[in-house]
Amino acid sequence: MTRPITFLSDFGRADEFVGVVHGVLATLAPESRVIDLNHDVPRGDVRAGALALTRSIQYLPKGVFLAVVDPGVGTDRRAIAAETESGFFVGPDNGLLSPAVAMVGGASRIVALESEEARIPSSGATFAGRDIFAPAAALLATGEATMTELGPDVDPGAVSPLLLPLPDVRAGTATGEAWWVDHFGNVQTNLSPDDLAEVGVKPGNTVTVKVGPRLHQVPWVVAYGEVGEREALLHIDSSGMVALAVRNGRADEELALTVGTPVSVVGAGASTSG
Amino acid sequence: MTRPITFLSDFGRADEFVGVVHGVLATLAPESRVIDLNHDVPRGDVRAGALALTRSIQYLPKGVFLAVVDPGVGTDRRAIAAETESGFFVGPDNGLLSPAVAMVGGASRIVALESEEARIPSSGATFAGRDIFAPAAALLATGEATMTELGPDVDPGAVSPLLLPLPDVRAGTATGEAWWVDHFGNVQTNLSPDDLAEVGVKPGNTVTVKVGPRLHQVPWVVAYGEVGEREALLHIDSSGMVALAVRNGRADEELALTVGTPVSVVGAGASTSG
Amino acid sequence: MTRPITFLSDFGRADEFVGVVHGVLATLAPESRVIDLNHDVPRGDVRAGALALTRSIQYLPKGVFLAVVDPGVGTDRRAIAAETESGFFVGPDNGLLSPAVAMVGGASRIVALESEEARIPSSGATFAGRDIFAPAAALLATGEATMTELGPDVDPGAVSPLLLPLPDVRAGTATGEAWWVDHFGNVQTNLSPDDLAEVGVKPGNTVTVKVGPRLHQVPWVVAYGEVGEREALLHIDSSGMVALAVRNGRADEELALTVGTPVSVVGAGASTSG
Repeated sequence: MTRPITFLSDFGRADEFVGVVHGVLATLAPESRVIDLNHDVPRGDVRAGALALTRSIQYLPKGVFLAVVDPGVGTDRRAIAAETESGFFVGPDNGLLSPAVAMVGGASRIVALESEEARIPSSGATFAGRDIFAPAAALLATGEATMTELGPDVDPGAVSPLLLPLPDVRAGTATGEAWWVDHFGNVQTNLSPDDLAEVGVKPGNTVTVKVGPRLHQVPWVVAYGEVGEREALLHIDSSGMVALAVRNGRADEELALTVGTPVSVVGAGASTSG
Repeated sequence: MTRPITFLSDFGRADEFVGVVHGVLATLAPESRVIDLNHDVPRGDVRAGALALTRSIQYLPKGVFLAVVDPGVGTDRRAIAAETESGFFVGPDNGLLSPAVAMVGGASRIVALESEEARIPSSGATFAGRDIFAPAAALLATGEATMTELGPDVDPGAVSPLLLPLPDVRAGTATGEAWWVDHFGNVQTNLSPDDLAEVGVKPGNTVTVKVGPRLHQVPWVVAYGEVGEREALLHIDSSGMVALAVRNGRADEELALTVGTPVSVVGAGASTSG
Repeated sequence: MTRPITFLSDFGRADEFVGVVHGVLATLAPESRVIDLNHDVPRGDVRAGALALTRSIQYLPKGVFLAVVDPGVGTDRRAIAAETESGFFVGPDNGLLSPAVAMVGGASRIVALESEEARIPSSGATFAGRDIFAPAAALLATGEATMTELGPDVDPGAVSPLLLPLPDVRAGTATGEAWWVDHFGNVQTNLSPDDLAEVGVKPGNTVTVKVGPRLHQVPWVVAYGEVGEREALLHIDSSGMVALAVRNGRADEELALTVGTPVSVVGAGASTSG
């Protein structure tokens, strides 16, 4: 029995960092399939990595999830492994794993990856992806190491959460923000269809959307084809979230949006002065 | 028995789209090897994707060919699977699959991927690569679904062809166009060695090539080393097509060429006024 | 028994070249795992490819190492396979394989890949990665071909070495150069910790580093966190080499460094006029 390993990082593809981690995985878990989820997470952007993992988790095979976006490398942040019903999550204790772990029902157990025997020694600086995280992921994939053998237990309450912005729904307005812009320029917000229902906005409506300081009238459609070329639209995207797009164009540019820009949907009965 | 799956798309690598499709394939066809052919097809460029698949098909293992370049997503274009002697082709019915299917001898059967049971339900917009094409590819790879179970038959004559530019050979001139510029700047045309033979041009000749409005004298060589540094050459490239290159340089820049630029090879007896 | 294949090239990801080589490997060695080490080696940069392979080799599974950085393609440089205690190295005879082969203890045997039967015929130019190197790698991975069947023996002394710059340690100064800048801007030199010990410089010291014509005072630290934001540091990197970095910044830009820039570490007793 050997589990598949899904691997996400911010290592990029220009150098051999991803390849070396694959080498370690292939050496220690020769029968495990490895799925590259994404290695172009913006450097050090823990939230972007966590969101990508969370959006994807239901489509990934149960097994081991190795995620490395680690701006705190070289500080005393812990390296952890979390056991869940979907398998094991391995990565830094900086919030990167938390939303995905929560989404699969939470961790039954968390350990700190402190066992020297489960690490690869380095003659220089530790490359944590290669020396700490990949060996732990491989040993969990093959079952050659138990959680206990990887290091001491960590109180789940002591693990870093990820502070995600929560939508604020009041006075007939649902206020959130852009939290993902894909490379096509499509913009996902942290608003859900339920938030829009709560302010009385329905599919098919033309919706008043406030992006930063500006108001836009945007149709809520199901398919891009329902609007004209280069026109903006609001829809529920393939992750189930409220998103803004421009048909055959870039919503981020047309609507002057980037990650973190406030986005509000204004219900029919709301004042738009706020 | 489980078939390998070759996967081509225009999803790029910046986001997790390719990785999520891999997750679906690994979940539904855990024993199938997946080969990434290319994910950097220019966005929505069906012809570029079709040509890449066609150039490669003879080097790929028989099995399942999953190709997604789909500018019509969200319109009523069909999703199809085609059965051939080399295996199954899965993708949008927009011409993307047609030249490769023809190259392996044509389809014995084509179905529309309409079975809801063979799709992954989405709480928002359909991500066709993830929800429709990947499950169909995986089910065909494992044999868990038959063509019949994926959806109703489609008349092969009703499937979208791909309109590829045909060379025009007359009056001693072979006229075609640039149809692929690789990232090194090498330019493949739609002219074959037979087209050049027909106008009396032979390997070793210095060839008169008209690129857009301009005439060039270019040697037809076998190896780049036969010309000087930064000099242009014509050769039969590794796909067997007439191509223009510059030794240690970019033919697209030196010869002012891009995809679609007309390229003619003028035979000895031809007038060059046309 | 089928060996894993690690694959490095300068093919980039924009076109299908890497994917086609994967297709050949999957066809001829369907059970071999393939590890992509890196395909973004700068085009034709044999030294960069050789260094990447050498840095990585100890982390890769024993098996077959397929490396293609081949600016001499189309000239009469040989294609070779080298047998070592770690497995088989396959690539052009231009120095690319030499340092990694030396690092694993040298080759017991080298052959030139001249057997037509072990090549894929092409109707046009030879794409050596696809037509010569990939088949040889696959046949060695499965054991379907012996070294003898791939081609005639080559005298190991006749194989191209790679001329790597050697540090020069004298008069209390260790002089080397930058030989790798990763995509984060971190700079690896060809100086080892031993070179620094020889000039009396120790971990924890503030070190006088001459980069090109300019002198810098840089702390030798273990962790980035020991210096302030955007400050330069010297450390032993995860490959065990002396490296320059800037915390949350780019050392190449801050210190005006690129591959080949001379870097000296000046010992306490040295004159800095030289």
